[in-house]
Amino acid sequence: MTQNRVLAAGLSQHVGEQVAVAGWLHRKRQLKSVTFLIVRDRTGLAQVVLTSHQAAAARAGDLPDETVIRVTGLVKANAQAPGGAEITDPSLTLVGEPAEPPPFDLYRPVVTAALPTVLDHSPATLRHPVLRAGLEISAASVAGFRATLDALDFTEIHTPKIVQSATESGANVFAIDYFGQQAYLAQSPQFYKQAMVGVFERVYETGPVFRAEPHDTARHLAQYTSLDAEFGFITDDHDVMAMLREVIAGMTAAVRARAYDAVRRAAAKLPDVPAQIPELHFADAQELIAAQAGWDPRGEPDLSPADERWLGDWAVREHGSELLFVTGFPMVKRPFYTHPDPDKPAYSRSFDLLFRGMELVTGGQRLHNHADYLAALAARGEDPAPYAGYLQVFRHGMPPHGGFAIGLERWTARLTGAANIREVTLFPRDLHRLAP
Amino acid sequence: MTQNRVLAAGLSQHVGEQVAVAGWLHRKRQLKSVTFLIVRDRTGLAQVVLTSHQAAAARAGDLPDETVIRVTGLVKANAQAPGGAEITDPSLTLVGEPAEPPPFDLYRPVVTAALPTVLDHSPATLRHPVLRAGLEISAASVAGFRATLDALDFTEIHTPKIVQSATESGANVFAIDYFGQQAYLAQSPQFYKQAMVGVFERVYETGPVFRAEPHDTARHLAQYTSLDAEFGFITDDHDVMAMLREVIAGMTAAVRARAYDAVRRAAAKLPDVPAQIPELHFADAQELIAAQAGWDPRGEPDLSPADERWLGDWAVREHGSELLFVTGFPMVKRPFYTHPDPDKPAYSRSFDLLFRGMELVTGGQRLHNHADYLAALAARGEDPAPYAGYLQVFRHGMPPHGGFAIGLERWTARLTGAANIREVTLFPRDLHRLAP
Repeated sequence: MTQNRVLAAGLSQHVGEQVAVAGWLHRKRQLKSVTFLIVRDRTGLAQVVLTSHQAAAARAGDLPDETVIRVTGLVKANAQAPGGAEITDPSLTLVGEPAEPPPFDLYRPVVTAALPTVLDHSPATLRHPVLRAGLEISAASVAGFRATLDALDFTEIHTPKIVQSATESGANVFAIDYFGQQAYLAQSPQFYKQAMVGVFERVYETGPVFRAEPHDTARHLAQYTSLDAEFGFITDDHDVMAMLREVIAGMTAAVRARAYDAVRRAAAKLPDVPAQIPELHFADAQELIAAQAGWDPRGEPDLSPADERWLGDWAVREHGSELLFVTGFPMVKRPFYTHPDPDKPAYSRSFDLLFRGMELVTGGQRLHNHADYLAALAARGEDPAPYAGYLQVFRHGMPPHGGFAIGLERWTARLTGAANIREVTLFPRDLHRLAP
Repeated sequence: MTQNRVLAAGLSQHVGEQVAVAGWLHRKRQLKSVTFLIVRDRTGLAQVVLTSHQAAAARAGDLPDETVIRVTGLVKANAQAPGGAEITDPSLTLVGEPAEPPPFDLYRPVVTAALPTVLDHSPATLRHPVLRAGLEISAASVAGFRATLDALDFTEIHTPKIVQSATESGANVFAIDYFGQQAYLAQSPQFYKQAMVGVFERVYETGPVFRAEPHDTARHLAQYTSLDAEFGFITDDHDVMAMLREVIAGMTAAVRARAYDAVRRAAAKLPDVPAQIPELHFADAQELIAAQAGWDPRGEPDLSPADERWLGDWAVREHGSELLFVTGFPMVKRPFYTHPDPDKPAYSRSFDLLFRGMELVTGGQRLHNHADYLAALAARGEDPAPYAGYLQVFRHGMPPHGGFAIGLERWTARLTGAANIREVTLFPRDLHRLAP
């Protein structure tokens, strides 16, 4: 099968030679005296030309789209053909049994099918060059995340996804029967990545996290891919923001380099990542909005979507940046492990990174002293007992540390402009969807 | 904190300078007139020398091991010190609150603590240079897996870990309450990676898989990291074995390059991966054992551990190879999606890769025609209904394809010689262990 196979993207290098291409029948066009078959492989499209006699002999007209075929023939230059070459005088072999046609024509540039149709048939519909582009951009992004952190001495970890306690982030959790005992699916690797700062100083993980979100919205998923980083020996959250800036720049560069064709197909817009992403304190952001936006958010403990959009526009206007750090979020809305600002204890050393007027990443400095954890839990009226395994970490010497988590699908959706995060999620899981 | 910080491994490049090191108090040695503090950071150890007067002033004797400190001082060359340099005239700063001592001395080269003690306190015990070495070897292995497949045009995917049907592999599954509906944790990404061959031709995933193994043994885990690859347009399982050989060679090379110090610490033994790994058909393997080993396994549908050990020795003796492919496993012991050998339909186009006399990887060619799947399920008396989502894939044109899955922890344990897979697993999950 692999012998003598030439990939579509390399066809023009074989003009004058007998070669084989193999792939999916992407499209056929039957004209009066000639039939064109377009074969799709992982690198692109190859055009095959048959005379009407050849087409009849090969029963090419009977083959449904997406049938896997192998075509042997003579390569001729043709500037009209994809890649500048085509296969002539072909002989066709059926590689698998004929396919059922996909739910819609995969060769049409614009997908008009509704999202449920696309998702119900994703093993077929993801073959569409635009629909699969998001997954290619995701893959390149993850590669950029890892490459950036590998170069900065981070160690990759793989943490448990089955955990004893549901108390981690307050998010909704999935319960699991663990050998007769109640356990939960991990909502994040937060506790484990902090523990591993004590071992490797700098760690990252790229893995699934689980949220039992009862919300049926365009941005909630029951499982998503979290790109987590955590590192020690920081001064404060500015070291975390500086690291995140490197990661976002590295992800963007990797998408540009590794997924340039997918970027074109999805018409994705990549950000210019400034050397220094502008930042604005939460309190200053609210003052600015109150003074200029026409509404007054002061007193609110969090930013509203309208606030975020306004601040996104402001950052473009004032700093020419699509990225903006909002720092010093109020402690009341942050998890108990968040490090307060020693000068203004109602505010935290944690931040959101806004991208095009929406929150993309949350991060910050964490507490690192055992006594501070006990005090933080007591202040919230929480029993420390369920956190025993976590608190153990801070008994054994921990440096000031912090980190962040990037939701992969959310990042990709922002780049492609997908209205629904499911468009760029492989086999999404949500309130109503458990298959395929 | 990060300002002016020099890492332990680079200390000797700063002789004559005032620098700061920061890390964990790995060890202290108080002699009559001098105290040595050994500070551990992510790159290694740095020696700090205090006069008895300085030590008293800094209360260095009171600091428990693993306390995080920052030390500023003058770097002097000293061939006796780790890395050939040490810090003199130091001033010490406590970076976190003093630590509780770890459950055993982390500076002693040999760990004598029992495994449960090690695992119960892993946030502290993994700081031991030998105990954490396995995790470094794992991280390097995963990097090598990805780098090898990235260079061969594979696309990384992230598949659902919550699935509708428990029928996938026959392994024990964890049940989960999915918004009031029964669902299961994925035992493998098998079905999804096959589906994605239809989209990208070549895919891999490095992620968690879940097995509700009721066995309390040295090699069973409830969660492990599976390195999965799957690709299309193969002729038969020999293409899969050739790909696996590249991957094993790439993983070995990455461990050698990226984790050389961890290899030394763990006294890990890396394999020589031959250009062509020898292979032996299952039936021939049984004949060989029957003729030479002193027992007769013929008629058994699988290899016993003793068979595997004998074949491992045979491969070293006959081929000078620690790796051996056993091909053509009987269909009766393989999953329904396994491709039979057309010439000998009782045998399959699937293989095990034995490494040092134990199974390391299972792989093979899969069925690719829809009709063959229906026939295979019917032959086993299985209802195709629960497989509807999976079977859909094969309705839409699939090429001959195959793949394999490498258990990361098992691979690492084989390299380090760990008697129990938990020694090289980060926060293992098993029948009795759900924390930390």
